[in-house]
Amino acid sequence: MKIAVLGVGLLGGSIALELRRCHPSPEALRLWARRRETLDEAVRLGVCGAEQISLTVEGAVKNADLAVICTPPASVAPLAEEVATVMPGHCVITDVASVKKSIVQLVGETSASGRFIGSHPMAGSHDSGVSSARLGLFKSATCIITPSPLVSSEDLSRVQTFWERLGCRIFTMTPEDHDRVVAAISHLPHAVAAALVNFVCTLPEEPAKFCGSGFRDTTRVAGGPSEMWAEIFMLNKDNILAALSGFAVELERIMMALQKEDVAEITKLLEEARCRRAAIGIGRSADIKTMEAE
Amino acid sequence: MKIAVLGVGLLGGSIALELRRCHPSPEALRLWARRRETLDEAVRLGVCGAEQISLTVEGAVKNADLAVICTPPASVAPLAEEVATVMPGHCVITDVASVKKSIVQLVGETSASGRFIGSHPMAGSHDSGVSSARLGLFKSATCIITPSPLVSSEDLSRVQTFWERLGCRIFTMTPEDHDRVVAAISHLPHAVAAALVNFVCTLPEEPAKFCGSGFRDTTRVAGGPSEMWAEIFMLNKDNILAALSGFAVELERIMMALQKEDVAEITKLLEEARCRRAAIGIGRSADIKTMEAE
Repeated sequence: MKIAVLGVGLLGGSIALELRRCHPSPEALRLWARRRETLDEAVRLGVCGAEQISLTVEGAVKNADLAVICTPPASVAPLAEEVATVMPGHCVITDVASVKKSIVQLVGETSASGRFIGSHPMAGSHDSGVSSARLGLFKSATCIITPSPLVSSEDLSRVQTFWERLGCRIFTMTPEDHDRVVAAISHLPHAVAAALVNFVCTLPEEPAKFCGSGFRDTTRVAGGPSEMWAEIFMLNKDNILAALSGFAVELERIMMALQKEDVAEITKLLEEARCRRAAIGIGRSADIKTMEAE
Repeated sequence: MKIAVLGVGLLGGSIALELRRCHPSPEALRLWARRRETLDEAVRLGVCGAEQISLTVEGAVKNADLAVICTPPASVAPLAEEVATVMPGHCVITDVASVKKSIVQLVGETSASGRFIGSHPMAGSHDSGVSSARLGLFKSATCIITPSPLVSSEDLSRVQTFWERLGCRIFTMTPEDHDRVVAAISHLPHAVAAALVNFVCTLPEEPAKFCGSGFRDTTRVAGGPSEMWAEIFMLNKDNILAALSGFAVELERIMMALQKEDVAEITKLLEEARCRRAAIGIGRSADIKTMEAE
């Protein structure tokens, strides 16, 4: 399978690193980026070989079986349209954006329509840029694929196999369901983490000076690139607003119990949270343990 | 320096492990716990030797230079009083509780008054119990000490040296300042994480099934023991309520910008959070990087 990666940041670069390790043949991979400097940096960092880069979209996709668009959300649809005009007829286009409904809609209005299958590998971090690219980024990451009902099983399986080989666990759902899900588990936590930092770090006592692993972990996602996140927030506005309101209700519940000094109710709310978190099986790993011990 | 550790959970057990490694002589350490089973488990886990445990407070502290109370917050003051009646006159008492003002006040009304110096090593985790005890828990952890102005420099330095040898970075402040600081950096994040779990994990779409490292890290602290946290919440109620209100204002700011589709304002709020978090230097470590790559 020949892959074209368009956009070489954390995700595009990490995909290239994995592909280069598994398929060292130069023909297996092509990288495109808008800026020459980004491609040069990718070569310098060993993300790809000098013969694998292209400054034209056509050069990157003309022999591709799969084109993976790794640019920020707002540029996915225009780029997909451009890719569709120069790629082979059998090529499938996918992406990595954190919002799916608006992208799938926009792409549906272009010539890329029948060839696009949206993907969202949940493998970001607070880092960004090709210099943060690394092997293993996708290992055990959830990847949500949002195929339209018209997609052929062959095309779908090409996208699915691609992510599976990178180490992802695959789920498929509609773009609408995807956007509701990530509003809750990704976009809401980002807003909450940002608000937490903005509150704590502007207090006159400068409490952040003393912070430990609790504050660090709770706010880690707030380290992500702001412009991209603002774009995501705008593109998933309604779901995020609904999630923020639902979260505020839960927070209010804790505040009320505290105001009433209702220790039984506080214990119940905290215990429910503890059990619910334990039930989804995300509490532990050897690495988390190491980290907390710092 | 002979140490008595009273209460053998995550913190007491981890202190014992460190002391045993540095000072293998049996006389250097005594452990007391209310329940025989806890002490037996500590011996079985190698946290201490069988000759180092005591089921009476007197047996644990009678030769001690420093008594470290590692029980939940509400029992610190009564235990300090009991310790004071049976310890040598030169012995200093400290603790590990996450709240200081109420504890220091209560201890001040007992015979332990002049011998107590409150400590708060910020080295907990979502684990609890002696079975979670581990070496390295205190390495680079912040430890806040809240000495009264009447404390002798000799006594203060004994407590300070003790935490420094475990690897802590020491800060001293008043109990009132301590409680405001931890309300912001520890108690508020706990409430926020619990509310986030309680919202996300009760949604009909079950989005938590798909969660990645972002949701996991943002909610990690919600895995802590509920009864102890409810106790902490009650003992630091006013500061936590103030922090919750301040946080709600920041969250509202993000919601308003989103409602107005003011992308410049959203970008600004997220960028401020990103920069503020970066400025406190808690973004990175080799272990965090490993963890995110899972």
